[in-house]
Amino acid sequence: MINIGLIGFGTVGKGVYHILEQNAALISERIGCSIVIKKIAVRSLDTYINQVPKSICLTNDVDELINDKEIDIIVEVIGGEFPAYDIISKALNHKKHVITANKEVISKHKKYFFKLAKKNGVDIYFEAAVGGGIPIIRSLKVGFAANKITAFYGILNGTTNYILTKLDEENLPYEEVLKNAQSLGFAEADPTMDVSGMDAAYKCTILAAVAFKIDVQVGDIYCEGIDKLSLGDFEYAKEFGFKIKLLAFGKRDSDDTFQLSVYPTMIPKDHPLAHVRNEYNAVYIVGDQVGDALLLGKGAGGAPTGSAIVSDIIDCAFGVSQPVSRRNLETHFIKGYVTPFEKTDSQFFLRLLVSNETGVLEKVTRQFSKHHVNIEKITQRETKAETAELVIVTQKISEKNCLSLVADLKKTAAINSVISKIRVLKL
Amino acid sequence: MINIGLIGFGTVGKGVYHILEQNAALISERIGCSIVIKKIAVRSLDTYINQVPKSICLTNDVDELINDKEIDIIVEVIGGEFPAYDIISKALNHKKHVITANKEVISKHKKYFFKLAKKNGVDIYFEAAVGGGIPIIRSLKVGFAANKITAFYGILNGTTNYILTKLDEENLPYEEVLKNAQSLGFAEADPTMDVSGMDAAYKCTILAAVAFKIDVQVGDIYCEGIDKLSLGDFEYAKEFGFKIKLLAFGKRDSDDTFQLSVYPTMIPKDHPLAHVRNEYNAVYIVGDQVGDALLLGKGAGGAPTGSAIVSDIIDCAFGVSQPVSRRNLETHFIKGYVTPFEKTDSQFFLRLLVSNETGVLEKVTRQFSKHHVNIEKITQRETKAETAELVIVTQKISEKNCLSLVADLKKTAAINSVISKIRVLKL
Repeated sequence: MINIGLIGFGTVGKGVYHILEQNAALISERIGCSIVIKKIAVRSLDTYINQVPKSICLTNDVDELINDKEIDIIVEVIGGEFPAYDIISKALNHKKHVITANKEVISKHKKYFFKLAKKNGVDIYFEAAVGGGIPIIRSLKVGFAANKITAFYGILNGTTNYILTKLDEENLPYEEVLKNAQSLGFAEADPTMDVSGMDAAYKCTILAAVAFKIDVQVGDIYCEGIDKLSLGDFEYAKEFGFKIKLLAFGKRDSDDTFQLSVYPTMIPKDHPLAHVRNEYNAVYIVGDQVGDALLLGKGAGGAPTGSAIVSDIIDCAFGVSQPVSRRNLETHFIKGYVTPFEKTDSQFFLRLLVSNETGVLEKVTRQFSKHHVNIEKITQRETKAETAELVIVTQKISEKNCLSLVADLKKTAAINSVISKIRVLKL
Repeated sequence: MINIGLIGFGTVGKGVYHILEQNAALISERIGCSIVIKKIAVRSLDTYINQVPKSICLTNDVDELINDKEIDIIVEVIGGEFPAYDIISKALNHKKHVITANKEVISKHKKYFFKLAKKNGVDIYFEAAVGGGIPIIRSLKVGFAANKITAFYGILNGTTNYILTKLDEENLPYEEVLKNAQSLGFAEADPTMDVSGMDAAYKCTILAAVAFKIDVQVGDIYCEGIDKLSLGDFEYAKEFGFKIKLLAFGKRDSDDTFQLSVYPTMIPKDHPLAHVRNEYNAVYIVGDQVGDALLLGKGAGGAPTGSAIVSDIIDCAFGVSQPVSRRNLETHFIKGYVTPFEKTDSQFFLRLLVSNETGVLEKVTRQFSKHHVNIEKITQRETKAETAELVIVTQKISEKNCLSLVADLKKTAAINSVISKIRVLKL
């Protein structure tokens, strides 16, 4: 059993708690032992006393967690520079592994924390501090470890990306979009940290630390927010084939010189970053070996951020519980059945070559009705004088249903042939 | 020092060798010791004798590598089921870590290999077997470890994705596109494995093993290739707002029942998978906590596949060399300078409000000439009777140059104001 001390019980803290509950079986099977939140520290006991299960010790004294010899890992999710700085420093000095979602304290004190962790033979994990649930830190450290990273381009702030998406797609003024975002929970009451670009700048310096191994503070980089953009910019962007995104940008100019900045950027619309919409985040990476790569996912919220933190916990717990053979998570296969393909369902794109004669559409649609297949889209196009093509997108039907429909379509006198049957992406 | 035994020296084997050479300093700094290819085994000594540096022992006997007590890690990059099956089995039984790029042998014998690795207290890594340089296996095992994975949608075959992209964008017949792909090295002389969907099916079963922990063989899943598609399908797909992609699909129906299949799929064009072009691969993942996420990158080639293998080597070597504090790769920060922002360059999107009078364009462009700024695109739009908007995208210029240009534009009598200055994505 591995014991966690959780500091903070807001949206992210609750997310961590719920994931550890909901996926307890999966997690303990993955690492060979269970993970338990032993103690939770909060500022005000009164606020949280009824939100935390009785089995977990609730305290307003973080030292109770840090001094607990049974606690292996401290998870800090209170945010802000202080008292997080003191808590993390103390935890590392007490040889606890630390997992944090705190971009500000990591951005400001990364060099100190990494040295302190190494000195104490423990680790500090901060996947959740950049890009929510996207495993960007781990990919830079491990998945792309063979590469010299030459550049990164990150959409790292969900609030501004949501606002920019709405400005682009709904043609409403900035103030109105911001108000809507606030009422939907995508923007804070005071959105300054997000719209000024400062939040993205903190994350930019963290990516720079991991990708380039440099210790840069936000004050050292150029940062411009989204508040100066106007609707006209979006209209012209469309005309020119661009999408406007707030980009955190890092580029290696030489072995020890780097470009780092945050500003609204016109992205050509055939670039993958142009299609990162709403509250999603993404990081586009260029490595000297792997070339370019993109990681995309939800940048905020209790569950996605909790996913990053609990994945960090699992990774860390592996090291605590079993140093060797740590990657063979698939050893215990389950008995899994493959659903017979004919029983699965899809929307189908069907292309029929039909006689160009009166009543043919009725004959075709009668077959669809007979097989209880609803039509989502239909279009007809004349090919030669005597034939036409009929293209139909169905609603969701089973493979079996589609097979028997197509068999009957082929037998229908007015239909010369079924040219294509292609499945539509199901989500 | 960690010694590697490399089996196979084709495109991927050479990629591994080159990365270990080129990024030797970075890699040894990352893991605290150097990684050396001690021996290379190939089928024909004659073919490779002049391609392998003299410092590396070349042999046609794989046992020389497996029995070498100084070799910690065996890297298998010969492909195919046999003799790879025997080599991997023997290596694991000799307590060597194994790293492979071989989708076929992993797909067919995954369960046996994972058990054998566990029994011998070693690991088997196969990041390069799916999605080339994309860290999808590691992300499923570690980065998304907190999640129950509910579905994956993978574009896993670069050859077919290249062909589908060209069919969509260039409107040439299948045979011609295939021939071009072959001459450019994006398709094999015998493309059956790729165009039939079998390559993607192997990868699909590997993803199913890691995401769902099930041991499924390719014969158990529905597989349809791209060879039946015609140009008409692409025309209608455009009309309906779709892109056609060969998708490897996995979905959890219940705790022990899964949909698995490979077939050409219509993807709505606002979905991130619709924008995966040419030889790129991508995997779209849905986790119960993280929600949906996408990983995209190059799916084949010596350098991207080598990137995955060498990243596996680094990850594995970490475990061999230093079991604790394995994640603090940033401990040794380098001295890094941030390029002054004014010295960096960009393309700029400039929006000017100008007087609607004769000669105004000449006055504006004179300022651009004076500052040696080339114009890439320009458009003019009348706003009111007496004013017009002039929108200009510049070629790449420095921030400093742009600042002085804008200062002069503001002073120009015919220009009422500079409404916007937005940077264009630089790649």
